[in-house]
Amino acid sequence: MGIVVSELRQTPVSEQELEIVERKGLGHPDHICDAVMNEVSISLSREYIKRYGIVMHHNIDKALLAAGAVRRNFGGGEVKRPMLMVFGDRATYEVDGDPVPIDEIAVSTAKKWFKKNLRFVDPERHVRYQVELARGSEALRDIFSRKGKFYGANDTSAAVGYSPLTDTERIVLHTERYINSPSFKKEFPETGEDVKIMGSREGGDLNLTIAMAFVDRLIENENQYFQRKAEVVEDVTRFVKSSSMV
Amino acid sequence: MGIVVSELRQTPVSEQELEIVERKGLGHPDHICDAVMNEVSISLSREYIKRYGIVMHHNIDKALLAAGAVRRNFGGGEVKRPMLMVFGDRATYEVDGDPVPIDEIAVSTAKKWFKKNLRFVDPERHVRYQVELARGSEALRDIFSRKGKFYGANDTSAAVGYSPLTDTERIVLHTERYINSPSFKKEFPETGEDVKIMGSREGGDLNLTIAMAFVDRLIENENQYFQRKAEVVEDVTRFVKSSSMV
Repeated sequence: MGIVVSELRQTPVSEQELEIVERKGLGHPDHICDAVMNEVSISLSREYIKRYGIVMHHNIDKALLAAGAVRRNFGGGEVKRPMLMVFGDRATYEVDGDPVPIDEIAVSTAKKWFKKNLRFVDPERHVRYQVELARGSEALRDIFSRKGKFYGANDTSAAVGYSPLTDTERIVLHTERYINSPSFKKEFPETGEDVKIMGSREGGDLNLTIAMAFVDRLIENENQYFQRKAEVVEDVTRFVKSSSMV
Repeated sequence: MGIVVSELRQTPVSEQELEIVERKGLGHPDHICDAVMNEVSISLSREYIKRYGIVMHHNIDKALLAAGAVRRNFGGGEVKRPMLMVFGDRATYEVDGDPVPIDEIAVSTAKKWFKKNLRFVDPERHVRYQVELARGSEALRDIFSRKGKFYGANDTSAAVGYSPLTDTERIVLHTERYINSPSFKKEFPETGEDVKIMGSREGGDLNLTIAMAFVDRLIENENQYFQRKAEVVEDVTRFVKSSSMV
Protein backbone atom coordinates (compact mmCIF):
# COMPACT_ATOMS: atom_id res chain seq x y z
CA MET A 1 0.00 0.00 0.00
CA GLY A 2 2.09 2.86 -1.28
CA ILE A 3 1.67 6.42 -0.14
CA VAL A 4 3.48 9.00 -2.21
CA VAL A 5 3.81 12.59 -1.00
CA SER A 6 5.12 15.19 -3.40
CA GLU A 7 5.62 18.92 -3.12
CA LEU A 8 3.19 21.07 -5.10
CA ARG A 9 5.05 23.66 -7.09
CA GLN A 10 2.82 26.04 -8.96
CA THR A 11 1.55 29.59 -8.84
CA PRO A 12 -1.28 29.56 -6.28
CA VAL A 13 -4.63 30.05 -8.00
CA SER A 14 -5.26 33.17 -5.94
CA GLU A 15 -2.14 34.72 -7.44
CA GLN A 16 -3.09 33.84 -11.00
CA GLU A 17 -4.54 36.64 -13.11
CA LEU A 18 -7.78 34.88 -13.96
CA GLU A 19 -10.01 32.66 -11.83
CA ILE A 20 -13.48 31.35 -12.62
CA VAL A 21 -15.57 29.55 -10.01
CA GLU A 22 -19.06 28.14 -10.37
CA ARG A 23 -21.39 26.86 -7.68
CA LYS A 24 -24.70 25.14 -8.30
CA GLY A 25 -27.05 25.68 -5.39
CA LEU A 26 -29.41 23.52 -3.39
CA GLY A 27 -32.25 23.52 -5.91
CA HIS A 28 -30.22 23.13 -9.10
CA PRO A 29 -31.11 19.88 -10.92
CA ASP A 30 -27.48 18.68 -10.90
CA HIS A 31 -27.26 19.25 -7.15
CA ILE A 32 -30.63 17.58 -6.57
CA CYS A 33 -29.49 14.48 -8.47
CA ASP A 34 -26.20 14.23 -6.58
CA ALA A 35 -27.76 14.95 -3.18
CA VAL A 36 -30.68 12.55 -3.60
CA MET A 37 -28.52 9.71 -4.92
CA ASN A 38 -26.12 10.22 -2.04
CA GLU A 39 -29.01 9.93 0.41
CA VAL A 40 -30.31 6.83 -1.39
CA SER A 41 -26.89 5.20 -1.11
CA ILE A 42 -26.80 5.98 2.63
CA SER A 43 -30.36 4.68 3.22
CA LEU A 44 -29.61 1.55 1.24
CA SER A 45 -26.34 0.91 3.06
CA ARG A 46 -28.18 1.21 6.40
CA GLU A 47 -30.82 -1.26 5.20
CA TYR A 48 -28.17 -3.72 4.03
CA ILE A 49 -26.31 -3.44 7.34
CA LYS A 50 -29.53 -3.90 9.32
CA ARG A 51 -30.40 -7.03 7.35
CA TYR A 52 -27.05 -8.64 6.63
CA GLY A 53 -24.46 -6.91 8.79
CA ILE A 54 -22.58 -5.62 5.73
CA VAL A 55 -23.09 -3.21 2.86
CA MET A 56 -23.95 -5.05 -0.34
CA HIS A 57 -22.61 -3.94 -3.70
CA HIS A 58 -24.34 -1.00 -5.31
CA ASN A 59 -23.48 1.95 -7.55
CA ILE A 60 -26.08 4.56 -6.81
CA ASP A 61 -24.75 7.65 -8.49
CA LYS A 62 -26.60 8.15 -11.75
CA ALA A 63 -29.88 10.01 -11.87
CA LEU A 64 -31.63 12.23 -14.35
CA LEU A 65 -34.06 14.92 -13.36
CA ALA A 66 -36.13 15.92 -16.38
CA ALA A 67 -37.91 19.26 -16.31
CA GLY A 68 -41.67 19.38 -16.06
CA ALA A 69 -43.85 22.09 -17.51
CA VAL A 70 -45.45 25.06 -15.79
CA ARG A 71 -47.74 27.95 -16.59
CA ARG A 72 -46.30 30.99 -14.86
CA ASN A 73 -48.45 33.78 -13.56
CA PHE A 74 -47.98 36.70 -11.20
CA GLY A 75 -49.75 35.73 -7.99
CA GLY A 76 -49.56 32.00 -8.71
CA GLY A 77 -49.11 29.71 -11.69
CA GLU A 78 -49.66 26.05 -12.20
CA VAL A 79 -47.53 22.92 -12.54
CA LYS A 80 -48.86 21.38 -15.73
CA ARG A 81 -46.52 18.42 -15.86
CA PRO A 82 -44.46 17.26 -12.87
CA MET A 83 -40.70 16.79 -13.06
CA LEU A 84 -39.44 13.27 -13.64
CA MET A 85 -36.68 11.78 -11.52
CA VAL A 86 -35.09 8.68 -13.05
CA PHE A 87 -32.84 6.55 -10.84
CA GLY A 88 -30.17 4.65 -12.76
CA ASP A 89 -27.22 2.33 -12.14
CA ARG A 90 -27.11 -0.76 -9.99
CA ALA A 91 -27.95 -2.31 -6.64
CA THR A 92 -28.19 -5.72 -5.00
CA TYR A 93 -31.89 -6.58 -5.14
CA GLU A 94 -31.73 -9.96 -3.49
CA VAL A 95 -29.55 -11.70 -0.95
CA ASP A 96 -29.89 -15.49 -0.72
CA GLY A 97 -33.46 -15.35 -1.95
CA ASP A 98 -34.39 -12.47 0.36
CA PRO A 99 -35.63 -9.50 -1.70
CA VAL A 100 -34.55 -6.00 -0.66
CA PRO A 101 -37.14 -3.27 -1.43
CA ILE A 102 -34.66 -1.14 -3.38
CA ASP A 103 -37.25 0.77 -5.42
CA GLU A 104 -39.28 1.74 -2.35
CA ILE A 105 -36.15 2.87 -0.50
CA ALA A 106 -35.05 4.99 -3.47
CA VAL A 107 -38.41 6.71 -3.94
CA SER A 108 -39.12 7.32 -0.25
CA THR A 109 -35.62 8.71 0.29
CA ALA A 110 -36.05 11.09 -2.64
CA LYS A 111 -39.41 12.25 -1.32
CA LYS A 112 -37.92 12.93 2.09
CA TRP A 113 -35.12 14.94 0.49
CA PHE A 114 -37.52 17.12 -1.51
CA LYS A 115 -39.71 17.69 1.53
CA LYS A 116 -36.79 18.68 3.72
CA ASN A 117 -34.91 20.88 1.26
CA LEU A 118 -37.25 22.57 -1.22
CA ARG A 119 -40.07 24.62 0.29
CA PHE A 120 -42.18 24.79 -2.84
CA VAL A 121 -41.77 21.30 -4.27
CA ASP A 122 -44.49 18.88 -3.22
CA PRO A 123 -42.82 15.47 -3.53
CA GLU A 124 -46.14 13.80 -4.25
CA ARG A 125 -47.59 16.17 -6.84
CA HIS A 126 -44.60 17.86 -8.47
CA VAL A 127 -42.29 14.92 -9.09
CA ARG A 128 -42.74 11.57 -10.82
CA TYR A 129 -40.30 8.80 -9.95
CA GLN A 130 -38.98 6.10 -12.23
CA VAL A 131 -36.61 3.51 -10.82
CA GLU A 132 -34.40 1.97 -13.47
CA LEU A 133 -31.82 0.48 -11.15
CA ALA A 134 -30.59 -2.85 -12.42
CA ARG A 135 -29.22 -5.80 -10.55
CA GLY A 136 -25.54 -5.46 -9.71
CA SER A 137 -22.92 -7.29 -11.71
CA GLU A 138 -22.68 -10.80 -10.26
CA ALA A 139 -18.92 -10.64 -10.22
CA LEU A 140 -19.09 -7.67 -7.85
CA ARG A 141 -21.97 -8.66 -5.61
CA ASP A 142 -19.82 -10.28 -2.96
CA ILE A 143 -17.20 -7.57 -2.98
CA PHE A 144 -17.79 -6.46 0.60
CA SER A 145 -17.82 -9.95 2.02
CA ARG A 146 -14.49 -11.07 0.53
CA LYS A 147 -11.87 -11.84 3.12
CA GLY A 148 -8.61 -10.04 2.75
CA LYS A 149 -6.19 -7.53 4.09
CA PHE A 150 -8.19 -4.49 2.94
CA TYR A 151 -11.75 -3.31 2.92
CA GLY A 152 -13.68 -3.97 -0.27
CA ALA A 153 -14.40 -1.11 -2.64
CA ASN A 154 -17.32 -0.60 -5.00
CA ASP A 155 -15.24 0.74 -7.80
CA THR A 156 -11.79 1.84 -8.88
CA SER A 157 -11.63 5.56 -8.43
CA ALA A 158 -9.17 8.38 -8.36
CA ALA A 159 -10.16 11.20 -6.03
CA VAL A 160 -8.87 14.73 -6.05
CA GLY A 161 -9.07 17.16 -3.19
CA TYR A 162 -7.45 20.38 -2.16
CA SER A 163 -7.36 22.94 0.60
CA PRO A 164 -7.67 25.78 1.48
CA LEU A 165 -10.24 27.51 -0.71
CA THR A 166 -9.22 30.68 -2.49
CA ASP A 167 -11.01 33.92 -1.60
CA THR A 168 -13.06 33.65 -4.81
CA GLU A 169 -14.12 30.11 -3.99
CA ARG A 170 -14.99 31.06 -0.43
CA ILE A 171 -17.06 34.04 -1.52
CA VAL A 172 -18.96 32.02 -4.14
CA LEU A 173 -19.60 29.15 -1.72
CA HIS A 174 -20.68 31.36 1.19
CA THR A 175 -22.87 33.51 -1.03
CA GLU A 176 -24.75 30.43 -2.23
CA ARG A 177 -25.13 29.20 1.32
CA TYR A 178 -26.30 32.63 2.39
CA ILE A 179 -28.97 33.04 -0.28
CA ASN A 180 -30.23 29.53 0.44
CA SER A 181 -30.14 30.01 4.23
CA PRO A 182 -33.31 29.98 6.38
CA SER A 183 -32.75 33.59 7.44
CA PHE A 184 -32.44 34.82 3.84
CA LYS A 185 -35.47 32.80 2.78
CA LYS A 186 -37.40 34.35 5.65
CA GLU A 187 -36.43 37.82 4.44
CA PHE A 188 -36.91 36.99 0.75
CA PRO A 189 -39.36 34.06 0.67
CA GLU A 190 -40.00 34.61 -3.04
CA THR A 191 -36.46 33.62 -4.01
CA GLY A 192 -36.17 30.05 -5.16
CA GLU A 193 -33.54 27.48 -4.24
CA ASP A 194 -32.45 26.78 -7.85
CA VAL A 195 -29.44 29.03 -7.75
CA LYS A 196 -26.27 29.20 -9.80
CA ILE A 197 -23.38 31.52 -9.03
CA MET A 198 -20.44 32.24 -11.24
CA GLY A 199 -17.52 34.15 -9.79
CA SER A 200 -15.07 35.55 -12.27
CA ARG A 201 -11.95 37.24 -10.95
CA GLU A 202 -9.57 39.25 -13.10
CA GLY A 203 -6.70 40.46 -11.00
CA GLY A 204 -8.29 42.09 -7.98
CA ASP A 205 -11.75 42.56 -9.54
CA LEU A 206 -14.40 40.01 -8.73
CA ASN A 207 -17.65 39.73 -10.69
CA LEU A 208 -20.46 37.60 -9.34
CA THR A 209 -23.27 36.48 -11.65
CA ILE A 210 -26.18 35.01 -9.71
CA ALA A 211 -29.06 33.20 -11.35
CA MET A 212 -31.95 32.88 -8.91
CA ALA A 213 -35.54 32.51 -10.01
CA PHE A 214 -38.45 34.14 -8.18
CA VAL A 215 -41.52 32.15 -7.19
CA ASP A 216 -44.46 33.62 -9.10
CA ARG A 217 -46.99 32.92 -6.34
CA LEU A 218 -45.26 35.48 -4.14
CA ILE A 219 -44.83 38.22 -6.73
CA GLU A 220 -47.88 40.25 -7.67
CA ASN A 221 -46.67 42.27 -10.63
CA GLU A 222 -43.70 43.44 -12.66
CA ASN A 223 -43.03 46.45 -10.46
CA GLN A 224 -42.82 44.31 -7.38
CA TYR A 225 -40.52 41.91 -9.18
CA PHE A 226 -37.98 44.61 -10.03
CA GLN A 227 -38.28 46.18 -6.59
CA ARG A 228 -37.63 42.91 -4.80
CA LYS A 229 -34.83 42.10 -7.21
CA ALA A 230 -33.13 45.41 -6.38
CA GLU A 231 -33.51 44.65 -2.67
CA VAL A 232 -31.96 41.22 -3.16
CA VAL A 233 -29.02 42.72 -5.06
CA GLU A 234 -28.51 45.28 -2.29
CA ASP A 235 -28.69 42.65 0.44
CA VAL A 236 -26.35 40.22 -1.30
CA THR A 237 -23.89 42.99 -2.13
CA ARG A 238 -23.86 44.01 1.54
CA PHE A 239 -23.25 40.39 2.52
CA VAL A 240 -20.41 39.90 0.06
CA LYS A 241 -18.72 43.11 1.16
CA SER A 242 -19.17 42.41 4.87
CA SER A 243 -16.16 41.64 6.96
CA SER A 244 -17.42 38.13 7.70
CA MET A 245 -16.53 37.17 4.14
CA VAL A 246 -12.90 38.16 4.20
CA MET B 1 -13.28 40.96 -24.71
CA GLY B 2 -10.26 40.31 -22.52
CA ILE B 3 -7.71 37.67 -23.27
CA VAL B 4 -5.29 36.90 -20.47
CA VAL B 5 -2.20 34.80 -21.06
CA SER B 6 -0.20 33.61 -18.06
CA GLU B 7 2.82 31.39 -17.74
CA LEU B 8 2.22 27.94 -16.30
CA ARG B 9 4.67 27.21 -13.55
CA GLN B 10 4.36 23.74 -12.12
CA THR B 11 6.10 20.39 -12.17
CA PRO B 12 5.00 18.71 -15.41
CA VAL B 13 2.67 15.80 -14.69
CA SER B 14 5.06 13.44 -16.45
CA GLU B 15 7.74 14.37 -13.92
CA GLN B 16 5.49 13.88 -10.93
CA GLU B 17 5.91 10.64 -9.01
CA LEU B 18 2.31 9.47 -9.37
CA GLU B 19 -0.06 9.70 -12.31
CA ILE B 20 -3.46 8.06 -12.73
CA VAL B 21 -5.33 8.15 -16.03
CA GLU B 22 -8.68 6.64 -16.89
CA ARG B 23 -10.32 6.21 -20.27
CA LYS B 24 -13.84 4.99 -20.85
CA GLY B 25 -14.13 3.31 -24.23
CA LEU B 26 -16.60 3.40 -27.07
CA GLY B 27 -19.16 1.06 -25.51
CA HIS B 28 -19.05 2.38 -21.94
CA PRO B 29 -22.45 3.78 -20.87
CA ASP B 30 -20.95 7.18 -19.99
CA HIS B 31 -19.33 7.42 -23.41
CA ILE B 32 -22.52 6.26 -25.15
CA CYS B 33 -24.53 8.99 -23.40
CA ASP B 34 -22.03 11.71 -24.27
CA ALA B 35 -21.54 10.54 -27.85
CA VAL B 36 -25.25 10.09 -28.61
CA MET B 37 -26.24 13.42 -27.07
CA ASN B 38 -23.49 15.12 -29.05
CA GLU B 39 -24.87 13.58 -32.25
CA VAL B 40 -28.41 14.59 -31.29
CA SER B 41 -27.28 18.18 -30.79
CA ILE B 42 -25.59 18.16 -34.20
CA SER B 43 -28.66 16.64 -35.95
CA LEU B 44 -30.94 19.09 -34.25
CA SER B 45 -28.77 22.08 -35.12
CA ARG B 46 -28.77 20.97 -38.77
CA GLU B 47 -32.56 20.67 -38.71
CA TYR B 48 -32.93 24.13 -37.16
CA ILE B 49 -30.59 25.65 -39.73
CA LYS B 50 -32.43 23.94 -42.59
CA ARG B 51 -35.77 25.25 -41.35
CA TYR B 52 -34.95 28.66 -39.89
CA GLY B 53 -31.44 29.57 -40.98
CA ILE B 54 -30.16 29.62 -37.38
CA VAL B 55 -29.64 27.22 -34.51
CA MET B 56 -32.41 27.50 -31.94
CA HIS B 57 -31.74 27.27 -28.23
CA HIS B 58 -31.22 23.78 -26.82
CA ASN B 59 -29.23 22.08 -24.08
CA ILE B 60 -28.84 18.50 -25.21
CA ASP B 61 -26.28 17.09 -22.85
CA LYS B 62 -28.06 15.03 -20.23
CA ALA B 63 -28.90 11.40 -20.82
CA LEU B 64 -29.18 8.31 -18.70
CA LEU B 65 -28.55 4.83 -20.01
CA ALA B 66 -30.07 2.29 -17.63
CA ALA B 67 -28.82 -1.27 -17.79
CA GLY B 68 -31.09 -3.98 -19.11
CA ALA B 69 -31.01 -7.60 -18.03
CA VAL B 70 -29.45 -10.58 -19.75
CA ARG B 71 -29.12 -14.32 -19.32
CA ARG B 72 -25.56 -15.19 -20.17
CA ASN B 73 -24.58 -18.48 -21.68
CA PHE B 74 -21.54 -19.89 -23.43
CA GLY B 75 -22.42 -20.04 -27.11
CA GLY B 76 -25.12 -17.43 -26.82
CA GLY B 77 -27.34 -15.89 -24.15
CA GLU B 78 -30.42 -13.79 -24.27
CA VAL B 79 -31.36 -10.15 -23.72
CA LYS B 80 -34.25 -10.44 -21.26
CA ARG B 81 -34.87 -6.74 -20.83
CA PRO B 82 -33.48 -4.08 -23.20
CA MET B 83 -31.45 -1.13 -21.99
CA LEU B 84 -33.28 2.14 -21.52
CA MET B 85 -31.95 5.39 -22.90
CA VAL B 86 -33.56 8.48 -21.38
CA PHE B 87 -32.97 11.83 -23.10
CA GLY B 88 -33.14 14.81 -20.73
CA ASP B 89 -32.69 18.59 -20.76
CA ARG B 90 -34.20 21.10 -23.17
CA ALA B 91 -34.87 21.98 -26.79
CA THR B 92 -36.97 24.38 -28.83
CA TYR B 93 -40.01 22.35 -29.87
CA GLU B 94 -41.83 25.01 -31.82
CA VAL B 95 -40.92 28.09 -33.81
CA ASP B 96 -43.72 30.52 -34.59
CA GLY B 97 -46.29 27.75 -34.46
CA ASP B 98 -44.21 25.36 -36.56
CA PRO B 99 -43.49 22.15 -34.59
CA VAL B 100 -40.01 20.62 -34.82
CA PRO B 101 -39.97 16.79 -34.49
CA ILE B 102 -37.43 16.81 -31.66
CA ASP B 103 -38.33 13.41 -30.24
CA GLU B 104 -38.08 11.67 -33.61
CA ILE B 105 -34.73 13.33 -34.32
CA ALA B 106 -33.38 12.27 -30.91
CA VAL B 107 -34.44 8.64 -31.24
CA SER B 108 -33.42 8.17 -34.87
CA THR B 109 -30.02 9.76 -34.19
CA ALA B 110 -29.46 7.42 -31.25
CA LYS B 111 -30.42 4.39 -33.32
CA LYS B 112 -27.99 5.40 -36.05
CA TRP B 113 -25.23 5.80 -33.47
CA PHE B 114 -25.82 2.34 -31.99
CA LYS B 115 -25.95 0.77 -35.44
CA LYS B 116 -22.73 2.43 -36.55
CA ASN B 117 -20.68 1.92 -33.40
CA LEU B 118 -21.71 -1.22 -31.52
CA ARG B 119 -21.64 -4.45 -33.51
CA PHE B 120 -23.79 -6.47 -31.14
CA VAL B 121 -26.40 -3.92 -30.09
CA ASP B 122 -29.56 -4.02 -32.18
CA PRO B 123 -30.97 -0.50 -31.81
CA GLU B 124 -34.51 -1.80 -32.30
CA ARG B 125 -34.51 -4.80 -29.98
CA HIS B 126 -31.88 -4.06 -27.36
CA VAL B 127 -32.65 -0.46 -26.46
CA ARG B 128 -35.81 1.33 -25.36
CA TYR B 129 -35.94 5.09 -25.81
CA GLN B 130 -37.65 7.62 -23.59
CA VAL B 131 -37.54 11.27 -24.57
CA GLU B 132 -37.97 13.58 -21.62
CA LEU B 133 -36.70 16.74 -23.26
CA ALA B 134 -38.62 19.78 -22.12
CA ARG B 135 -39.29 23.04 -23.87
CA GLY B 136 -36.42 25.50 -23.57
CA SER B 137 -36.61 28.40 -21.16
CA GLU B 138 -38.52 31.17 -22.90
CA ALA B 139 -35.97 33.73 -21.84
CA LEU B 140 -33.30 31.83 -23.74
CA ARG B 141 -35.20 30.78 -26.85
CA ASP B 142 -34.18 33.74 -28.94
CA ILE B 143 -30.59 33.71 -27.81
CA PHE B 144 -29.15 32.97 -31.24
CA SER B 145 -31.21 35.57 -33.04
CA ARG B 146 -30.30 38.50 -30.79
CA LYS B 147 -28.39 41.22 -32.57
CA GLY B 148 -25.11 42.20 -31.03
CA LYS B 149 -21.40 42.32 -31.28
CA PHE B 150 -20.85 38.68 -30.42
CA TYR B 151 -22.33 35.32 -31.30
CA GLY B 152 -24.98 34.02 -28.93
CA ALA B 153 -24.13 31.22 -26.52
CA ASN B 154 -26.34 28.52 -25.08
CA ASP B 155 -24.85 28.71 -21.64
CA THR B 156 -22.16 30.24 -19.47
CA SER B 157 -19.30 27.82 -19.37
CA ALA B 158 -15.69 27.60 -18.37
CA ALA B 159 -13.67 25.25 -20.52
CA VAL B 160 -10.33 23.70 -19.69
CA GLY B 161 -7.91 22.24 -22.18
CA TYR B 162 -4.29 21.27 -22.28
CA SER B 163 -1.61 19.91 -24.53
CA PRO B 164 0.43 17.82 -25.10
CA LEU B 165 -0.64 14.53 -23.55
CA THR B 166 1.75 12.81 -21.18
CA ASP B 167 3.14 9.41 -22.15
CA THR B 168 0.71 7.75 -19.73
CA GLU B 169 -2.26 9.57 -21.26
CA ARG B 170 -1.11 8.74 -24.76
CA ILE B 171 -0.65 5.06 -23.96
CA VAL B 172 -4.08 4.79 -22.29
CA LEU B 173 -5.82 6.64 -25.13
CA HIS B 174 -4.11 4.72 -27.92
CA THR B 175 -4.64 1.39 -26.19
CA GLU B 176 -8.38 2.04 -25.98
CA ARG B 177 -8.47 3.07 -29.61
CA TYR B 178 -6.48 -0.01 -30.54
CA ILE B 179 -8.68 -2.53 -28.73
CA ASN B 180 -11.77 -0.88 -30.21
CA SER B 181 -10.29 -0.66 -33.72
CA PRO B 182 -11.74 -2.61 -36.68
CA SER B 183 -8.52 -4.59 -37.08
CA PHE B 184 -8.48 -5.69 -33.43
CA LYS B 185 -12.18 -6.57 -33.55
CA LYS B 186 -11.50 -8.65 -36.64
CA GLU B 187 -8.74 -10.54 -34.80
CA PHE B 188 -10.71 -10.76 -31.53
CA PRO B 189 -14.39 -10.46 -32.51
CA GLU B 190 -15.48 -11.78 -29.11
CA THR B 191 -14.18 -8.71 -27.29
CA GLY B 192 -16.87 -6.14 -26.55
CA GLU B 193 -16.71 -2.38 -26.96
CA ASP B 194 -17.55 -1.58 -23.32
CA VAL B 195 -13.98 -1.00 -22.26
CA LYS B 196 -12.42 0.88 -19.39
CA ILE B 197 -8.69 1.40 -19.00
CA MET B 198 -6.92 2.70 -15.95
CA GLY B 199 -3.28 3.61 -16.24
CA SER B 200 -1.41 4.05 -13.01
CA ARG B 201 2.17 5.26 -13.14
CA GLU B 202 4.50 5.25 -10.17
CA GLY B 203 7.82 6.73 -11.16
CA GLY B 204 8.84 4.84 -14.30
CA ASP B 205 6.47 1.87 -13.76
CA LEU B 206 3.18 1.88 -15.61
CA ASN B 207 0.33 -0.47 -14.73
CA LEU B 208 -2.60 -0.82 -17.10
CA THR B 209 -5.87 -2.31 -15.87
CA ILE B 210 -8.21 -3.11 -18.73
CA ALA B 211 -11.84 -4.08 -18.23
CA MET B 212 -13.22 -5.60 -21.42
CA ALA B 213 -16.11 -8.04 -21.46
CA PHE B 214 -16.31 -10.98 -23.84
CA VAL B 215 -19.41 -11.63 -25.90
CA ASP B 216 -20.82 -14.99 -24.77
CA ARG B 217 -22.15 -15.92 -28.21
CA LEU B 218 -18.58 -16.21 -29.49
CA ILE B 219 -17.13 -18.15 -26.57
CA GLU B 220 -17.91 -21.84 -26.33
CA ASN B 221 -16.57 -22.75 -22.92
CA GLU B 222 -14.41 -21.73 -19.98
CA ASN B 223 -11.22 -23.07 -21.50
CA GLN B 224 -11.71 -21.05 -24.63
CA TYR B 225 -12.43 -17.96 -22.54
CA PHE B 226 -9.14 -18.17 -20.67
CA GLN B 227 -7.22 -19.05 -23.82
CA ARG B 228 -8.60 -16.08 -25.74
CA LYS B 229 -8.07 -13.83 -22.74
CA ALA B 230 -4.39 -14.84 -22.63
CA GLU B 231 -4.09 -14.11 -26.34
CA VAL B 232 -5.65 -10.69 -25.86
CA VAL B 233 -3.25 -9.89 -23.02
CA GLU B 234 -0.31 -10.97 -25.19
CA ASP B 235 -1.49 -8.92 -28.15
CA VAL B 236 -2.22 -5.78 -26.13
CA THR B 237 1.09 -6.08 -24.28
CA ARG B 238 2.89 -6.30 -27.62
CA PHE B 239 1.02 -3.23 -28.84
CA VAL B 240 1.79 -1.18 -25.73
CA LYS B 241 5.47 -2.10 -25.88
CA SER B 242 5.75 -1.44 -29.60
CA SER B 243 7.77 1.50 -30.81
CA SER B 244 4.70 3.15 -32.32
CA MET B 245 3.56 3.99 -28.80
CA VAL B 246 6.61 5.93 -27.71
